[in-house]
Amino acid sequence: MTALDEDGRPVGFTATSLASLAAVPPLATFNMALTSSSWPTIDATRRVAINMLGQDDYLVARIMAGPNEQRFDGDHWEAGPGGLPLIVGATAWMVGEVVATTPVANNVMIAVQIDQGALGDPDEPLLYHERSFRALGAEL
Amino acid sequence: MTALDEDGRPVGFTATSLASLAAVPPLATFNMALTSSSWPTIDATRRVAINMLGQDDYLVARIMAGPNEQRFDGDHWEAGPGGLPLIVGATAWMVGEVVATTPVANNVMIAVQIDQGALGDPDEPLLYHERSFRALGAEL
Repeated sequence: MTALDEDGRPVGFTATSLASLAAVPPLATFNMALTSSSWPTIDATRRVAINMLGQDDYLVARIMAGPNEQRFDGDHWEAGPGGLPLIVGATAWMVGEVVATTPVANNVMIAVQIDQGALGDPDEPLLYHERSFRALGAEL
Repeated sequence: MTALDEDGRPVGFTATSLASLAAVPPLATFNMALTSSSWPTIDATRRVAINMLGQDDYLVARIMAGPNEQRFDGDHWEAGPGGLPLIVGATAWMVGEVVATTPVANNVMIAVQIDQGALGDPDEPLLYHERSFRALGAEL
């Protein structure tokens, strides 16, 4: 999840809570802490980019879950629509407007209506389970 | 996701949108359609059971995603706290109160505060990807 703050600086984090809410209109949800370094920007600008990461992107997933002042050090991102940071090599990106924010205790659930997006490099899915990154397994 | 309607009948569905919102207090979120057969009950009773399914439960996952009038035909569930339906063999169950509901278009995002739960039978994780059930793969 990435956004652009009002001073033009990129912010973002690796989200594990992304879920589909609807297909028509295209809506997605995610959760974050109100103490997250990205929340003031998302709350103020109401615009986010959702970057879908595949197995080849797992080092980027680690960087974006690391110290927040280092998450955009490197060439693993570029400016997309409206200057929103897009992760280079993501399997897909979607850009949209925050249409609902519901604070609950010290956290917030967020709904985004997607208005633009594209597929990127095909890749195998990247999973996160018990603090490690994993591949998708066999069909049952 | 299961609930008990005001006439004492079980309702529920297989959710793929379950996400953690917070650890303290324990909060989880999920999404559903306002047209879902389970929504009127969840909206009225504000109590749900979250049944975590493992690989051994994948036939139950299919049943609970099938025709809603057949989802509780069988011995794959039993009454739990407050009569809430619990799936037999689930890897864990959690029961809680719906503390926030935010409708967006024809859908709703829901936050649940967990007040009771227990671990069940250990099992491998059950994944759902591109309309099929999958195992968890290797660590990257």
